Amino acid sequence: MRTSRLEAFSDGVLAIIITIMVLELKVPHEPTLEALGGSVTGFLTYLLSFVYIGIYWNNHHHMFQVVEHVNGTVLWGNLDLLFWLSLLPFTTAWMDETSFSRTPVIIYGINLLLAAVAYYALQRAIFRVEGGSGLREALGRDLKGKISPVLYLSGIVLAFVNPWLAMLVFTGVAIMWLVPDRRVERYLATRESGSG
Amino acid sequence: MRTSRLEAFSDGVLAIIITIMVLELKVPHEPTLEALGGSVTGFLTYLLSFVYIGIYWNNHHHMFQVVEHVNGTVLWGNLDLLFWLSLLPFTTAWMDETSFSRTPVIIYGINLLLAAVAYYALQRAIFRVEGGSGLREALGRDLKGKISPVLYLSGIVLAFVNPWLAMLVFTGVAIMWLVPDRRVERYLATRESGSG
Amino acid sequence: MRTSRLEAFSDGVLAIIITIMVLELKVPHEPTLEALGGSVTGFLTYLLSFVYIGIYWNNHHHMFQVVEHVNGTVLWGNLDLLFWLSLLPFTTAWMDETSFSRTPVIIYGINLLLAAVAYYALQRAIFRVEGGSGLREALGRDLKGKISPVLYLSGIVLAFVNPWLAMLVFTGVAIMWLVPDRRVERYLATRESGSG
Amino acid sequence: MRTSRLEAFSDGVLAIIITIMVLELKVPHEPTLEALGGSVTGFLTYLLSFVYIGIYWNNHHHMFQVVEHVNGTVLWGNLDLLFWLSLLPFTTAWMDETSFSRTPVIIYGINLLLAAVAYYALQRAIFRVEGGSGLREALGRDLKGKISPVLYLSGIVLAFVNPWLAMLVFTGVAIMWLVPDRRVERYLATRESGSG
Repeated sequence: MRTSRLEAFSDGVLAIIITIMVLELKVPHEPTLEALGGSVTGFLTYLLSFVYIGIYWNNHHHMFQVVEHVNGTVLWGNLDLLFWLSLLPFTTAWMDETSFSRTPVIIYGINLLLAAVAYYALQRAIFRVEGGSGLREALGRDLKGKISPVLYLSGIVLAFVNPWLAMLVFTGVAIMWLVPDRRVERYLATRESGSG
Repeated sequence: MRTSRLEAFSDGVLAIIITIMVLELKVPHEPTLEALGGSVTGFLTYLLSFVYIGIYWNNHHHMFQVVEHVNGTVLWGNLDLLFWLSLLPFTTAWMDETSFSRTPVIIYGINLLLAAVAYYALQRAIFRVEGGSGLREALGRDLKGKISPVLYLSGIVLAFVNPWLAMLVFTGVAIMWLVPDRRVERYLATRESGSG
Repeated sequence: MRTSRLEAFSDGVLAIIITIMVLELKVPHEPTLEALGGSVTGFLTYLLSFVYIGIYWNNHHHMFQVVEHVNGTVLWGNLDLLFWLSLLPFTTAWMDETSFSRTPVIIYGINLLLAAVAYYALQRAIFRVEGGSGLREALGRDLKGKISPVLYLSGIVLAFVNPWLAMLVFTGVAIMWLVPDRRVERYLATRESGSG
Repeated sequence: MRTSRLEAFSDGVLAIIITIMVLELKVPHEPTLEALGGSVTGFLTYLLSFVYIGIYWNNHHHMFQVVEHVNGTVLWGNLDLLFWLSLLPFTTAWMDETSFSRTPVIIYGINLLLAAVAYYALQRAIFRVEGGSGLREALGRDLKGKISPVLYLSGIVLAFVNPWLAMLVFTGVAIMWLVPDRRVERYLATRESGSG
């Protein structure tokens, strides 16, 4: 099975997830800045989840550039990842509507954690596909990929102290990933020049 | 008519169906685990319908790999399938909001049945397209395809005894399909090596 | 400008329009067939608008197979068509929620009429693009395209007598278009064999 | 990284933004023209934002025709643009529901301004990509691109006098862009004939 249609379907799902979150933003009833102020946290959590989906799309993109064909395991691993990401609008809205109470923040962290685990499993499934060993080579030690679940977990634990500490960690992980990941690009460049 | 644009359109529709179901999940008002507990069945039915759409997308993908051109019958057969699948968010939500009462569970089963029938009709329409006989060959006896409608029907009948028995059957059919279907891949591999 | 991205964007918009209409279907509160009965007209209008979007997608597909490049006029003509089609979920919901009262049915007819006019204008814009004269040739007398606005208009007028007469006409036009339009396919086949 | 998947993802997001705005249109409860009259401003603001998204899609399309590969800066610049455009349904709905009060109109203007700034930054990021200098050449003095932010700003200031003056300016900018931008097409045509 070629990756092109899998990419197209994933692009569609990610595009919808990233956009429907804006539907959760409640339009204020009063035409005042104070009323809009009530949407500020909603706006910031929307921004955070938007960035997370953006990061996943970006990395997803890189991951599938290395292989040309996928098998059933990759396909269902991909749907598993999309499933957890599709819950982000729900957990984001709950967190925001309860003013960042402990339980919703923990659930948000668990959602991020499960998406990261699904991503990790998908990555390993791609390793075993023809050409996928190149991805393993390209990722190298994959420090970011390994440290992220640990950070999500520590964020979840910190939420028991103070939910805002957890939000700090979750924002920190997003910023860490915002720094573009050039490993795959570098690997592809090396391979091309190597075969030249 | 080439299949590429039909696939792109179907991918779009399926991506939207699979994602908007999450909009039906009601965000709890209380920031407690108990409040979230009220969403558990909603979460599980979302998961079930997500898996069903994933299965259809997966099989749809395989089905159209065999042919390169489609005719008007295939096109409308495809829209027929998409129509019944697009009703899944509605029947899923009704079933969940009424706590799996008999009638909504039966309607959900009928929805699954009608989608299966539409899929079967689409398959037969593809058989008659140039190159489509390959799909017939690839599917062989098509045991899963033939047993599914029978299982949906028995689920619908069992709902009169107990709706949860029906849910068990519907979940069972989904699991049966989750086992990846290698027939088309095998057929394509055989054809390639045969022409080599 | 190549048509591929214009087609992809249009596919996306049409896929969303066809799917969000199902969000307008109100999930019944009671788990009974009587409660579901209240959704029957909603279901039928959803089906009608679904078929209309399907028809436009189908014809849109054919129209852009003839040309390879488009200009700004075609691009905005296409957005004009998408705009009127995007209002269908709105006018469909209004018609359904008011139990097919005269004014909403007339507005629905006007919506169909304006979409048809936009389609006609888009077609004429494509005629003037390089290769677009082929579309004119392929369409021939374009009887269906010319009779449809007249039928919409007569439906609008008939709504003043009885809104259900209008619904009959609007359904009739949809059925008329469901019969697949082989003109473009025939033209392309002729051209290919002619250049062979 | 090739631009094709970035374009596909952007097309998806823009298609969703342009379509979900119609979900903000409240279906009138009464089946009368008077009731529909209450939706007229909602309809007009939908039209305005629809045209804006259409303009951005159109220009986006042109911008990425010049380059074939993009880097991480372009990718995040693109997501930045999509983020601000994804807020348009929210600011459009607020403006409409408060009958064009001063604050919501100003916020709408700021939204347009920030989208324009993001677009400008994206453009500059493309300039630095391989082949991107061609875009700079193609745009020439880029009068429209430079005057738009100034006009948005003046609209925001004018809203303090009268919100309708601001709406006049915002509509004027949209009309200014509706005139198709042939610079990129001309540049590509020149380059092709030059290399012929």
